[in-house]
Amino acid sequence: MFSSTTPIRIHYALTDQMGVVYHGHYAQFHEIGRTEALRQLGVTYKDIEALGIIMVVVDIHTRFLLPARYDDLIIVKTTLREFPVGHKIVFYGEIFIADKLINTSTVTLYILEAKGMKKSVLPEYIKDKLQPFFNT
Amino acid sequence: MFSSTTPIRIHYALTDQMGVVYHGHYAQFHEIGRTEALRQLGVTYKDIEALGIIMVVVDIHTRFLLPARYDDLIIVKTTLREFPVGHKIVFYGEIFIADKLINTSTVTLYILEAKGMKKSVLPEYIKDKLQPFFNT
Amino acid sequence: MFSSTTPIRIHYALTDQMGVVYHGHYAQFHEIGRTEALRQLGVTYKDIEALGIIMVVVDIHTRFLLPARYDDLIIVKTTLREFPVGHKIVFYGEIFIADKLINTSTVTLYILEAKGMKKSVLPEYIKDKLQPFFNT
Amino acid sequence: MFSSTTPIRIHYALTDQMGVVYHGHYAQFHEIGRTEALRQLGVTYKDIEALGIIMVVVDIHTRFLLPARYDDLIIVKTTLREFPVGHKIVFYGEIFIADKLINTSTVTLYILEAKGMKKSVLPEYIKDKLQPFFNT
Repeated sequence: MFSSTTPIRIHYALTDQMGVVYHGHYAQFHEIGRTEALRQLGVTYKDIEALGIIMVVVDIHTRFLLPARYDDLIIVKTTLREFPVGHKIVFYGEIFIADKLINTSTVTLYILEAKGMKKSVLPEYIKDKLQPFFNT
Repeated sequence: MFSSTTPIRIHYALTDQMGVVYHGHYAQFHEIGRTEALRQLGVTYKDIEALGIIMVVVDIHTRFLLPARYDDLIIVKTTLREFPVGHKIVFYGEIFIADKLINTSTVTLYILEAKGMKKSVLPEYIKDKLQPFFNT
Repeated sequence: MFSSTTPIRIHYALTDQMGVVYHGHYAQFHEIGRTEALRQLGVTYKDIEALGIIMVVVDIHTRFLLPARYDDLIIVKTTLREFPVGHKIVFYGEIFIADKLINTSTVTLYILEAKGMKKSVLPEYIKDKLQPFFNT
Repeated sequence: MFSSTTPIRIHYALTDQMGVVYHGHYAQFHEIGRTEALRQLGVTYKDIEALGIIMVVVDIHTRFLLPARYDDLIIVKTTLREFPVGHKIVFYGEIFIADKLINTSTVTLYILEAKGMKKSVLPEYIKDKLQPFFNT
């Protein structure tokens, strides 16, 4: 299992007239979480795209448990529960305010070649960095 | 069953550097679909909020089948498959480009009193307008 | 002078916790106005980009006179006051709710070659369509 | 003069199909800069709103000098050049990537009472914190 956490400060543009963070913005938070999880591993998503590989979101299941508000510091926890073998990779995201869980999100992505959109796999150098977290 | 369709033109801000609509924006499209479905019924969500009732998204399951691009005219189809009885209402959304299905989204909302966030139900005048679509 | 108007319905995601449209979203409205002004002329910005030409915003001066709110129908009026001669094009935008002016925006764009970012000019076929509006 | 800097990492949702940050998002960056400038002063904008005071953007003049791209770390520098005396406050913002200036923005806000929108002034406790930076 590989897990990482990223803090995000809620800025004004993210609120709506209910006085809470608009539900549609949570997908961004989890995406930032995935990017920072990779960075913590020593990899940037930018570099992956530079290799001609893209990771495309194909499925999201997300639950909203509690609201977030302006100026809250949310913590996005991003977890890879299973070592990604084929063209599919599943990230499990949880968002906390202090120790309260406010949102969960299971995000499935396909790893594709940018040109032609053919199914691909995670580059070897990333698998090498992930491996130690999944050794039994 | 009650169903309605709403066209949305993809503007530049909705694209990302992959050259497609950023996945996080689809929640907005379905929300616009729900608002316009209500309007077609002769109801505005604005009026509902004026009554002190809010509808809060608690769960989304969404699948991305095909990309949308800049200047595409997407069609959001919003369907209420079941007559909403308690505090829960489920909208089923589909997005099309011409006749190709590009996204589906099942969105569950809770109907709440804005003050105190206590569970509520759909106002009677809306139920009355919905009823004819669910008579057997 | 060439002028066109475009209606935009304010959806929920555009509001903030002040209960009005977040100021940062107005740039989008004017951009939609420019796109629709071109379309009304029989041109799409998409086609312009397909020719390898991009139009890049370099300067905005915008004034916020009155707020817009959820579900308002705003009208974006986009005007080209001067025939664009070089690599520079200036759009003058005004946003109305009914007959009340709520925002003005002067937007300067550079016309560039997408590859290499060299200064370019408006494609001839667009100039031809614009010409009749500027004949004296 | 009071000045502060805030780093912001460019996430994917902020890019557009030109491969750069969409121009309409810069207003957010400067707003985050203003919020963090206040925080550095020991004040939160959240607390100001809790006092029934809001700060409303009335005028922006912004220039785009160079593009920002995905994963760039931009630095927002926010400066108050003059001590705010009446209901008007002007922030001068500059955005840098490393030492390259990529955007400038002069943002004028009105300080208003949230109820009734009557002109107000900056709360005394904020003026007290600002004063040392403007003593001659």
